[in-house]
Amino acid sequence: MAAPATEAPKTETKKISLTGIKPSGTPHVGNYLGAIKPALKLAETFQAYYFIADYHALTTVTDPDLMHQYVYEIIATWLAMGLDPDEVVFYRQSDIPEIFELTWILSCYTAKGLLNRAHAYKAKVDANREEDRDEDAGVSAGLFNYPVLMASDILMFNTNYVPVGQDQKQHIEIARDIAASFNNNYGQEVLVLPEAYIMDDVATVPGIDGRKMSKSYGNVVPLFAPPKQLRKQIMRIVTNSQQPEEPKDPDADNIYNIYKHFASPEDLARVRQTYLEGGLAYGKMKQELFELLEATFGEARSQYDEYMNDKAELDRIMTRGAEKARAISVPMIEKMRKTVGIR
Amino acid sequence: MAAPATEAPKTETKKISLTGIKPSGTPHVGNYLGAIKPALKLAETFQAYYFIADYHALTTVTDPDLMHQYVYEIIATWLAMGLDPDEVVFYRQSDIPEIFELTWILSCYTAKGLLNRAHAYKAKVDANREEDRDEDAGVSAGLFNYPVLMASDILMFNTNYVPVGQDQKQHIEIARDIAASFNNNYGQEVLVLPEAYIMDDVATVPGIDGRKMSKSYGNVVPLFAPPKQLRKQIMRIVTNSQQPEEPKDPDADNIYNIYKHFASPEDLARVRQTYLEGGLAYGKMKQELFELLEATFGEARSQYDEYMNDKAELDRIMTRGAEKARAISVPMIEKMRKTVGIR
Repeated sequence: MAAPATEAPKTETKKISLTGIKPSGTPHVGNYLGAIKPALKLAETFQAYYFIADYHALTTVTDPDLMHQYVYEIIATWLAMGLDPDEVVFYRQSDIPEIFELTWILSCYTAKGLLNRAHAYKAKVDANREEDRDEDAGVSAGLFNYPVLMASDILMFNTNYVPVGQDQKQHIEIARDIAASFNNNYGQEVLVLPEAYIMDDVATVPGIDGRKMSKSYGNVVPLFAPPKQLRKQIMRIVTNSQQPEEPKDPDADNIYNIYKHFASPEDLARVRQTYLEGGLAYGKMKQELFELLEATFGEARSQYDEYMNDKAELDRIMTRGAEKARAISVPMIEKMRKTVGIR
Repeated sequence: MAAPATEAPKTETKKISLTGIKPSGTPHVGNYLGAIKPALKLAETFQAYYFIADYHALTTVTDPDLMHQYVYEIIATWLAMGLDPDEVVFYRQSDIPEIFELTWILSCYTAKGLLNRAHAYKAKVDANREEDRDEDAGVSAGLFNYPVLMASDILMFNTNYVPVGQDQKQHIEIARDIAASFNNNYGQEVLVLPEAYIMDDVATVPGIDGRKMSKSYGNVVPLFAPPKQLRKQIMRIVTNSQQPEEPKDPDADNIYNIYKHFASPEDLARVRQTYLEGGLAYGKMKQELFELLEATFGEARSQYDEYMNDKAELDRIMTRGAEKARAISVPMIEKMRKTVGIR
């Protein structure tokens, strides 16, 4: 649509960022610090797209009730954490049918060798070899083709930047290779070549046993559990057996290493002092961490609960988001069809 | 929709057949006898679906102008040959976006091993090995995933029978395997298991040089070339150098082996007699074959030309076909989404 004549011409167009959110379990504090918080910051710099990668999750989530639950949980989480659906483009992958048609088109310009070398697939093959199994045992075509669907997610929206950790850079390289191969065949710059936006300074946080917080270790601090449950989990944080009066190394303590991400500089300095000088009781410190997490996430939890009790509202939000996304994807797929001669 | 109360209940529901038509070159007499004619007969027995597999062709047709041309040629050919779009369901694959979404869902239930063993892929790997190339050289993800898209084409419409030659049975077996794996995971008979409908008695016809008629041999008799061009091609049919008065073996002659598919029993008996007794001049026989093909396909050619000069009409026909097909595919994809928990 043409802009109204009275509107001043834009002097600067924001670059586009795209963040995929895979619904594969109830979110925890580690997810918040490692993924949600840094991703939400992208909206300050970019025209930010966020999508729920529900069809990606289908490669692992084969229970329909779990799939249903995970999707709503993750939508409610991001909204409760401050994602503003009016400001950004927030949609479900499954609401954009054009993505799957584009996946097929791109697959015709994806060298199979690229997929043979994809990390996730290779890891599976290596594990099978170690166990003397057929190297493709338990590998579905969906797992193998995952990078093509991801390329489609990215290329559909003329994405400039995809925020990734170092270990996911390869996905962006594959998307770039596919886009270049397509553009090259048709002699046109139809597809925008995306770049990885490496998030180096992303915080990692220990779980209650000191290992990296991860659902698979069963050591998570949940984001939105009821206070009693949250407190119980925090009380289970593993510490050493030093007495209160002994001086302690705060950086070696799991409580401190969670606490430090949320405390004010003043509180952090005060607590650190007590660790170093002696006089800190772990039980009291756990209580302080509990109260800090309550203060940090209590309001978000209320919002989360409200959303989870009003799924119709979540559906409305996602439907509006899908409309915004399809305003891009529908003309894009038309352009792709014309380019390949299908129309 | 509920049937009107006055309508008698159906005592018999026709089984569904599905025929895919790949647009990959101007159709010739071999295509007619080997594919078009037997496929059109299916409509007598089955509720027959026919679709233009334009997105399948994208694995090989990378020139957009050729793609565009092939698609219209093949649509016009089947209509000119008697396909009745009011009687059957006739649509373009690319008009049914649900097929691509279903392809992704199915890929999550497709063991990669099934694709490793697919004939077309294995042939490519073998050829690469023989030439000492990387075994996946020149293999795209599209070529590798071809059987999954084909399974989606089939399973989308609750297909009971897919007409195939012996060499394509594997595709149906793959589709059955995928459907069974999906149904098994969700504990429901969501997908109908298709069966191969082997067409054993399909005629093969020699090209003008005696080898099987095939575009890749450059030996085809075109279906709809202008009369002059058709005559010229027929005059190039290779024969032995026997004199007219010599007795000849009709079954060893290329002219006869094309002629026999179109002649009336009376004409065929008469001609065969002349071959065996002597007195047949190849030049005259070629003229008779030309006239027979003109009589057989002349009217269809006029219709073909009319269609090719009115692509808007072809578009209208295919749009109506797509509406009929989507009356099945839209509720089907809804059912699939519900089953996997995406909605």
